[in-house]
Order: sequence, then C-alpha cells, then structure tokens
Amino acid sequence: MLVEPPRLVHSRVAVNPVNRTFALPHALMLDGGGLLEDAVLAYETYGSLDETRSNAILVCHALTGDQYLASPHPVTGKPGWWTRMVGPGRPIDTDRYFVICANVIGSCMGSTGPASLAPDGRAYGARFPVITIRDMVRALVGLLEGLGIARLHAVVGGSMGGMQALSLAANWPERAARVLVIASTSRHSAQNIAFHELGRQAIMADPHWNGGDYYTGKPPAAGLAVARMAAHITYLSESALTAKFGRNLQDRPDGSKGAKSFAFEADFQVESYLRHQGSGFTRRFDANSYLYITRAMDYFDLAEEHGGHLAAAFGGTAARFCLVSFDSDWLYPTAESRHLVHALNAAGAAVSFVELSAPFGHDSFLLDVPALDRVARGFIG
Amino acid sequence: MLVEPPRLVHSRVAVNPVNRTFALPHALMLDGGGLLEDAVLAYETYGSLDETRSNAILVCHALTGDQYLASPHPVTGKPGWWTRMVGPGRPIDTDRYFVICANVIGSCMGSTGPASLAPDGRAYGARFPVITIRDMVRALVGLLEGLGIARLHAVVGGSMGGMQALSLAANWPERAARVLVIASTSRHSAQNIAFHELGRQAIMADPHWNGGDYYTGKPPAAGLAVARMAAHITYLSESALTAKFGRNLQDRPDGSKGAKSFAFEADFQVESYLRHQGSGFTRRFDANSYLYITRAMDYFDLAEEHGGHLAAAFGGTAARFCLVSFDSDWLYPTAESRHLVHALNAAGAAVSFVELSAPFGHDSFLLDVPALDRVARGFIG
Repeated sequence: MLVEPPRLVHSRVAVNPVNRTFALPHALMLDGGGLLEDAVLAYETYGSLDETRSNAILVCHALTGDQYLASPHPVTGKPGWWTRMVGPGRPIDTDRYFVICANVIGSCMGSTGPASLAPDGRAYGARFPVITIRDMVRALVGLLEGLGIARLHAVVGGSMGGMQALSLAANWPERAARVLVIASTSRHSAQNIAFHELGRQAIMADPHWNGGDYYTGKPPAAGLAVARMAAHITYLSESALTAKFGRNLQDRPDGSKGAKSFAFEADFQVESYLRHQGSGFTRRFDANSYLYITRAMDYFDLAEEHGGHLAAAFGGTAARFCLVSFDSDWLYPTAESRHLVHALNAAGAAVSFVELSAPFGHDSFLLDVPALDRVARGFIG
Repeated sequence: MLVEPPRLVHSRVAVNPVNRTFALPHALMLDGGGLLEDAVLAYETYGSLDETRSNAILVCHALTGDQYLASPHPVTGKPGWWTRMVGPGRPIDTDRYFVICANVIGSCMGSTGPASLAPDGRAYGARFPVITIRDMVRALVGLLEGLGIARLHAVVGGSMGGMQALSLAANWPERAARVLVIASTSRHSAQNIAFHELGRQAIMADPHWNGGDYYTGKPPAAGLAVARMAAHITYLSESALTAKFGRNLQDRPDGSKGAKSFAFEADFQVESYLRHQGSGFTRRFDANSYLYITRAMDYFDLAEEHGGHLAAAFGGTAARFCLVSFDSDWLYPTAESRHLVHALNAAGAAVSFVELSAPFGHDSFLLDVPALDRVARGFIG
C-alpha cells in the first residue's frame, strides 16, 4: 500500500522533496526464484503530478546513487546528485514534470536491502537474496502502481540507471513513452565483471566483513574503501586524471610544498584524492549493498533474458528511445550503445543516438556536459 | 665482491642457469638519501661470456618478474618467463650471447629486499628504504662491474624492465651499446599511480600486514591477492578479456554446467580466473616487495631526473635505441613510447620505433607475438 499518497497540488515550488517510503503491497518475486517479503522503497519526488497522471518521469540511479536526485543528501549534506539535470527550468523540468527517484532494493538509503531487518528481527546481511536489475525494476513498477501512474512520460537513467530504464522498456513496455539511456550497456563485459569482482574480493577480504554479519560491530570499511577506489578509477578517464592531477605532488598537512616522502604517504595528489574518495564513501554506503548491487549489474544481460536476441527484448515496443554515450567512457564505451541501437533498429523501434565528446570518462553523465543537457531537454520535450 | 666468478666456457649448452648471488662490494647509495649496506643480487646467466666480454646482454625484469628468465621458477616450477625470447636460436640467442638477469633490489627472489634480514637480525619489513628505479639500476651496474662487463651488447626490458633499460641508458650511457625498451614509459601517468595506490591500500588494509612486520606470522595474502587482481586487469585488454572469457559461466566443481548461482560464488570464468591469479601470486611474492617496487615505479620520471627535459636524459648518448609498443596496451599506451621517441630524436640518438598490433594488452610483451620476436632479433643482431 501507499504509505503517503502523492500530493496532487500544482505547486510552483518545483524542487519539492517529500522523503517518502512505499511498502510494496505484495511479496516481490525475484529472478533468483525466491520472494522478498515486506519490501519497502524509499523515494523522493520533485514537482507535481498533473490531474491525468501523465507527466511523471522516473529517474533511475546508478550503483552508489540514491533517491536524493535534486535535494540534499541527508548523510553528506551535499546537493542532489543530478541538480544540473533536474529542477525548475532544468532539462528535466520540475515545473512541468513530476519526477520520481527511488532507492533501489538492495541499496542502503531506506529501501529494503541487506542492512534491513529480516523477519527474525536481525539484519539480513548475507541472507539477503541475490537480486537482479529486473528485480529492482519490478519493485519500481510496484511503486508506479502505488502512485497510480500507468504510463511514464519518460524513464531516464545513466550507468546502472540506464540498465533499469532498458529493463523497464523491455519487460514492461507499456510503462514508459520515452526511454533515455545514458552511458550504459545491455550487458557487462568481462572487464566490467573483473573490476566488480575485484571490489567484492576487497570487501570480503576485510575480516570485519565477517561473512556479511557485521551490523552489530565494525563494518568492513577498509575493504569497501579499496573497492570504491577501484571503481572510481574506472569512472574517470586517463586524460581526466592527467588533467586533474598529472604527477602533481600533494602539499603536506603542515602547509609545506609537496615533495617525495620516500615513504608510503600519499605523495601524489591522485593518491590523496583516491584515499579521500574511498574513506568518504564508507560513511554513506553499506558494504553488503555494494556486493549485491555489483552482482546484479554483472548478471544483467538483456539479450540473455530474451532468448539470446537483444532485438527480441524490444519487440513491439511503442516507446521512443534516446541513447547517449561519451567518447571518454571506457567503462561502457560507445560500442555498447551502438550495440543497443542496432538491436533497437532491428526491433523497429524509434531510436536516436549520439556520442558526446566529454573529458570526464564514465562520470560525464553526472558532470558539466552542456551537450547532454541539450539532448535530454530535446528528448524529454 | 663476486661470490662466484662467471664461467667463461664456450658451451653449446646454451640454456645454462647458474643460480648465482653477488654481494655488492660497497654500500649502495640510494636516491632517497640513505645507504643500503650489504646488498646482495640474485641472478641467473644463460650462454657464455666471450673472451672480450663484449657479448653480454642484460635483461631487466618487470614488477613481479624475477631472474628466472629462461629457466624454471624454483617456487612455481613453471618455465622461465621469457623462454620464447631467450634461449638457443631464440631472438636473444644464448648460443651467441651471455644473457644476465638479476632480481631487482626490493624484490623477494634472493636479492636484498624488505624480507631480508637487516643488520639487527630481523627482517627489514617497513624499515627497508624506499628505492627508485635508478637505485635498482645502480645495483645492476655493480653486478656488471663485478662480472667485468664494461659495456653491454644490449640492455633489454619490458614494462618496468624497460624503465630500468632507459635509466641505465640515461645515467650510465657508456654501459650499453643497444637499448631495447618494450611496452614501457618514461614516467607513470596519474592513472598508473592510481592503480598502484589501489593495490598498496589493499595490502595495507589487510590486518596481517601489521605495518609491514609480518615475517614471523601470517602474511597479508588477502590484501596482496586483491592488489594482484587489480594489476592483472590492467595487464590485459578489454578485448583480450572478452575473447578469453566473455560472459562465460564457470563449470561447477562437481562437473555440472555453469549457471548463475544467485550467490557470491565465482559464477563467471573471469571471476574464477582473477581469484586464481590473485591467490597463486601470494605463494610466490612478498607483499612488502609489492609496496616498494610499485612505489619505485610511481616515482620514476626520467625527465624530472634531468631538469624536467626528457631529451636531456639522453644527451650525447652513443647507444642505439629500439622502442616497441602494443596497440592494445592501455597501461603504457603507444603515446608513451612516442613521447620517448621524440625526446630521443631531440637528443640526436639513433632510434627505431614500432607499434605492434597484438590482442593481449600490456602482457603482449610476454606472449605469442611473432612480430616482437622479429623486431628483437633484428635489433639485437
């Protein structure tokens, strides 16, 4: 049931976070064969749903993202992760659209995940079922039903968010009129899986992980920080790292000029940056969620779900698709988007595709790329 | 002093490992300002030194390599790491040349490193001084002096071995007539440093690391395995991983066909492979050596050593250079070799350069690339 009904006011206060939770009315059927009982989704909305409930846009978040799309993160206090894209007058204009973003199941910002209490009153930990991208989307579809939204104006996502948008389009084709997929893929490459496995091994090598049962003790922060460092390298490009840091040395805490320490201090700025990224992440993210969500991403293979034919995933779709890749993204390079475009073409779908030039690597979808804003604004309408 | 003099027999038994050690006659001056007393180099030789001592080739090994270039590794029992390149009739022909390969200082296969006993009778651990590529080469020059070799026919190295070859050419220009540098660089990029820092953080996050003092207890094998996994991904190419593994599932230990486990088993072959690479590595390599050698590589910046001008590193050199890069190497991409070629050109050095097409990524220098064999054979003469 819907815990709190959506407000249908036509407010001009467009950025209008409401910090809601939604309890799925039925047990969630999982691709792994089990059921997840009593699942809850934590979500935010921005803007107002119109009377015909036809102006809703679902934004799906990436691996370590959350529902705080356009409102401050309650733990870090930082602005929402996509304020440049979502807000009044922005490409996804909250003056016109009702924008929904929910924390995926398996995550740790209020939706049911490994840190949630199982029916026995203890945290699930490693007893949480392994989930898939489609399971995440199944829960999101439950939320849309709860909100009374039969058809989205658009579903939008970058990276893992793009996987969810694709999964929604493939498995619930009547649910979205437009599908905007940015810097994403129809399946993980061996190299993608390898980087994720490295991160998982780093977490599981941390003795504090303790088989996933650490919620009453110290969390495996050191392992999670290493996992984050590895992932972070893949989110940037070699040229972005060179432009940002090069071989510059880090100034010392005492203010003195950077110099080689001939020790294992963070001599180089890039070392200091990575350590900071790693440790900061551990304050806002749960290590078990990292395991489960990376696993879901590695399992994602839209063709495999449809008899081995990617085009079959989109048979008969009436949605319009827009795919965007970035030339500096080596995690999900342009070839992955092209592969999707070919399948959409084969399925007779309406699809536009653009590779944008941006220096920031995979993270370009989150950063200052005005061309992306223009593409999104044009496509969303 | 030379512990055991080189045999000057002209044997046709070309692969002729002798498993020697050489004690440096003087304390080794280090770039970090200290002295390393009583340093020993463990080395292998193949072929025979001629009477004029002019047919010697020094091969420098990479980060996790060792002196077992063309003879079985005593720990793993595997063949030498470059038997395709070095041996009778091979491109580096041990019927004609006296080939030397020494374990670098800081490593763990018999040369002095963090696992060696310090003067107080306990292992150095983190008390071992931070060393540089030039320090490694300074020790190798000591070995050449001990062997009575004033000038090498050639110095050869891939990856970190290439850094050593460049350092020898730059700092001891009279020591080598030919310099063959494969898949290497004049300095580490921010991304290279980032991957190394990730590995170091994985090791130091392992509680068994214990500040580097673990030689009487359990070593930080889990952390070292994660570091190796990270590095291993960078040694291959995305296409090599795809060709080798793709998204193929691993058959089960009971012989049943691979299937998604919906657990955290190594479902994908690439996961299984990486875990194997990680754990196998810990049986032959010391975690502290990994810290010290990666640090030396990150510090390497041949231009910085020569007033910020890479060309100045090669001023007045009489050596002939040959540089080889691989199109699939994203660790030290072709641009790094080109940067070196431009500097050598500016210095008026004789240099040839070729980018080879090979599918194996950075590891191509160790693998089946017949074009590399031809280039090496032609250059070595």
